[in-house]
Amino acid sequence: MNDLLLDIRRNPVLWLLALVPIVLVAAKVSPASHTLLFVLAVLAIVPLATLLSHATESVAAKTGDTVGGLLNATLGNLTELIIALSALRLGQVTLVKASVAGAIVANTLFLLGASFLLGGLKYHVQDYNRTNARLQTSLLFLATVAMIIPSVVADTDFAMAPHFLQELSVGLSVALIIAYGLGLIFSLKTHRELFGSIEEVAHEETPWPLKVALATLAGVTVMVALVSEIFVESVQEAAAAFGMTPAFVGFIVVALVGGAAEMASAFSGARKNRLDLSVGIALGSAAQIALFVAPVLVLLSYVVGPSPMDLLFWPGAVIMVLIATMTAIIVTNGGHSTWFVGVLMLIVYLILAMTLYLLPPQV
Amino acid sequence: MNDLLLDIRRNPVLWLLALVPIVLVAAKVSPASHTLLFVLAVLAIVPLATLLSHATESVAAKTGDTVGGLLNATLGNLTELIIALSALRLGQVTLVKASVAGAIVANTLFLLGASFLLGGLKYHVQDYNRTNARLQTSLLFLATVAMIIPSVVADTDFAMAPHFLQELSVGLSVALIIAYGLGLIFSLKTHRELFGSIEEVAHEETPWPLKVALATLAGVTVMVALVSEIFVESVQEAAAAFGMTPAFVGFIVVALVGGAAEMASAFSGARKNRLDLSVGIALGSAAQIALFVAPVLVLLSYVVGPSPMDLLFWPGAVIMVLIATMTAIIVTNGGHSTWFVGVLMLIVYLILAMTLYLLPPQV
Amino acid sequence: MNDLLLDIRRNPVLWLLALVPIVLVAAKVSPASHTLLFVLAVLAIVPLATLLSHATESVAAKTGDTVGGLLNATLGNLTELIIALSALRLGQVTLVKASVAGAIVANTLFLLGASFLLGGLKYHVQDYNRTNARLQTSLLFLATVAMIIPSVVADTDFAMAPHFLQELSVGLSVALIIAYGLGLIFSLKTHRELFGSIEEVAHEETPWPLKVALATLAGVTVMVALVSEIFVESVQEAAAAFGMTPAFVGFIVVALVGGAAEMASAFSGARKNRLDLSVGIALGSAAQIALFVAPVLVLLSYVVGPSPMDLLFWPGAVIMVLIATMTAIIVTNGGHSTWFVGVLMLIVYLILAMTLYLLPPQV
Repeated sequence: MNDLLLDIRRNPVLWLLALVPIVLVAAKVSPASHTLLFVLAVLAIVPLATLLSHATESVAAKTGDTVGGLLNATLGNLTELIIALSALRLGQVTLVKASVAGAIVANTLFLLGASFLLGGLKYHVQDYNRTNARLQTSLLFLATVAMIIPSVVADTDFAMAPHFLQELSVGLSVALIIAYGLGLIFSLKTHRELFGSIEEVAHEETPWPLKVALATLAGVTVMVALVSEIFVESVQEAAAAFGMTPAFVGFIVVALVGGAAEMASAFSGARKNRLDLSVGIALGSAAQIALFVAPVLVLLSYVVGPSPMDLLFWPGAVIMVLIATMTAIIVTNGGHSTWFVGVLMLIVYLILAMTLYLLPPQV
Repeated sequence: MNDLLLDIRRNPVLWLLALVPIVLVAAKVSPASHTLLFVLAVLAIVPLATLLSHATESVAAKTGDTVGGLLNATLGNLTELIIALSALRLGQVTLVKASVAGAIVANTLFLLGASFLLGGLKYHVQDYNRTNARLQTSLLFLATVAMIIPSVVADTDFAMAPHFLQELSVGLSVALIIAYGLGLIFSLKTHRELFGSIEEVAHEETPWPLKVALATLAGVTVMVALVSEIFVESVQEAAAAFGMTPAFVGFIVVALVGGAAEMASAFSGARKNRLDLSVGIALGSAAQIALFVAPVLVLLSYVVGPSPMDLLFWPGAVIMVLIATMTAIIVTNGGHSTWFVGVLMLIVYLILAMTLYLLPPQV
Repeated sequence: MNDLLLDIRRNPVLWLLALVPIVLVAAKVSPASHTLLFVLAVLAIVPLATLLSHATESVAAKTGDTVGGLLNATLGNLTELIIALSALRLGQVTLVKASVAGAIVANTLFLLGASFLLGGLKYHVQDYNRTNARLQTSLLFLATVAMIIPSVVADTDFAMAPHFLQELSVGLSVALIIAYGLGLIFSLKTHRELFGSIEEVAHEETPWPLKVALATLAGVTVMVALVSEIFVESVQEAAAAFGMTPAFVGFIVVALVGGAAEMASAFSGARKNRLDLSVGIALGSAAQIALFVAPVLVLLSYVVGPSPMDLLFWPGAVIMVLIATMTAIIVTNGGHSTWFVGVLMLIVYLILAMTLYLLPPQV
């Protein structure tokens, strides 16, 4: 428990934890002040996500390489998963889809692009292990295919049987989870020597003892669940108050809030010329959301939500994920990076964000 | 003739030849038992395709490298061509288009993916000549462009002049055949040294004497034509009996039946660590269908069919061919293969097959 | 001034300059003979473009490497810019868009493909600096994204607010110009050592003295502006007389006329085995039009034209630019070229040109 307190004292971000009880009380006292609740919830989720990520890594560090890698690979985006589950329980399927697509794009373009730029401002040319980048971008490509298919088929079919899309979505989800699982066996077991430097880099900070880590994991998960419910309930009306479109909120705001913890690690890796860490976090996280979080949400929607979720995305979202995936494939092909590569990726992200920001709200 | 009989005795697949007369008689006696005729026809086509492919290779082996390469490159998909011609004569243009698109996808994703998987289960990492893979995927990309163009143009134009599509399709077909022909000059003549290991691998089995080979070629071609007519006539109703959609039948079933002979060779090559053979068969066959068989069918449709065939495909089929081509380009970029690359390709194929299987039948 | 006259005497193309006064007089005397005026204007623009390009290079050569590179990078497509401005002033926004998209495609597929073919007929395999090719194709990809976004968004939105598209187009244009500017800093300043051989090759011919060059630049710009006004006014009706569709004229004819000067340099570079020159001209010019000329036209349309221009292109044009960009990315991936690579690119261009030529005129 001391480790946890020590960490909190040393890391100013964690001081924001004080906001967690405040936001919970405020939601009871004044449930209609959406803008205030939204801002408080966002600021409270950031330190919780940081704790969650550290707790997961600590458990992973204690349980040996393979189980640890597996844990990181399944719980690494726990914050995103909990936020999405809250939205799913409240029947906000559109928000869930936007935040899933947005998280894939944000990790691929913003997180990777900013890492390349930050690293490139300090080092002339940076190299990284391109085998891992290839595996992750191939997985992303597979997920993109799974997203394209329903919208193509739905587009050409006028009188679409409604259960067709649901059956297809369940089938696609199972296929993606299998692919993700086999990818873990490939990278953690049969061909682990090809993925050299990624294994070690996860354990950056001192890991907590197992008991502290497990307790934190459990406690913080509950807190994230509570806060993200407030976040989801307030986000749409707060966004309208700030003049943002719902598409922009789901795709950009929720995605960046959910990924705050990964950003810190990825950027610090890039500044230390450990680009393998940044590439691993950015593309690994994108692949995990696409091949694990999204399919799990589809399957869980039959248990949790008022209505099941399918994999039919808004065509604009499909195109944006496709653009992000193609950009990552083209850019990581060489295994080198310079500041300008980062700039290019950030401008692609800027273009997508700007489009969503300007989009008339009735869409 | 002894060689032919010897081959038949040694290869259990060829025992299925006994079904050829049975299916022909059955079609006369009971033309309405579609399901039975379909199963018999499928089982009869497999050994015929094997004989056809061995006969073509034997003729090729006797006529010198360049002419032989040319023969393999034009008659290598003779079974697919004959089945498609039967369908064309019966006015089933939609089935022809689905089977052409399906054969490109099956060769690119299923045949190549399964070869990578089978080889990768035995060898840790396998290498292959990437120059040939690049040539074939570039040709495939060109054919994909030729497939995309009509559907894009047709999509944006409301009152489309009908002869426009036909003129365009004839023009595209001629362009593809020219590209295919120049590609043969490139790989068999001016730059043959870049394609080293592919030349030799074709002549795996002992070639038959020229006379036997030519006689087999002629005789079996006639038999394939007769059986495939029964196959085409029975396939739709048999499929309905099995609960399959017409799209699934054309795209998946017909394509796999037509490619049975290539599969055996490609898989055995992968198990013997001769991946150049597998890649050559899979991508070479896909390119041949896209740049030679399909355009020839368009041109022949003016002579053979009741109505001409154009190159306007169902948008879903265009997207699937595009996905297959992009997957092949991304995957063969490195020139190495592992079991997981094969798995990824097979899952992409599985996703496409599942979508077509679930598609409501009215589409 | 002697240098200018000497150049004119030595270069037969420049004898066509005699047509400049003739076309100006003819336009006054007989403004209705569209076909004649069109032919004269085309023939007069070619030598003017050659002079303009030589004048720009001469100024660039005198002003040091960085400023010179910058000049080349901004004025290198001055002819295209002036023709487009003339069309914009006359309210022909559709023609401007078609010629911008057509110029990107013509440079990427025709100019580069023909250079590969011409070089490959003389040399077995040619190599070139692939870093520059990668930079330019990445920029092209970014521009393609900026072209795709408006048409995707416009497509899914039924009651589109008209000022949305204009705001979006201005935002995209600013983003593209920033990307282009940062790309120049990257290739001319911070990482210039990676782009070795491209710098020198620009100064092929003897540069003119600064005074002659500046005077020529000013004088010829005025003449191009006058002639291109006649060209734009006559092109549509002349095209109808030749049986060409408006789409074909804008996309193919205007693009090839505007790029005549670059073609001469690129082809001569390929024949001298200086493929870096050809690749630099072809892809550099395409990137310049996409990331500098087109956005500048959007911004200037608020000052110059009767109606503002947006970045919403005809879906067919978007697909063609995407095809051209993907072809360039796939083809330049290896850094080698042979005659067949050139053939493939030319056939892709031929397919696009043929489609536009056959397109029914009401589109």
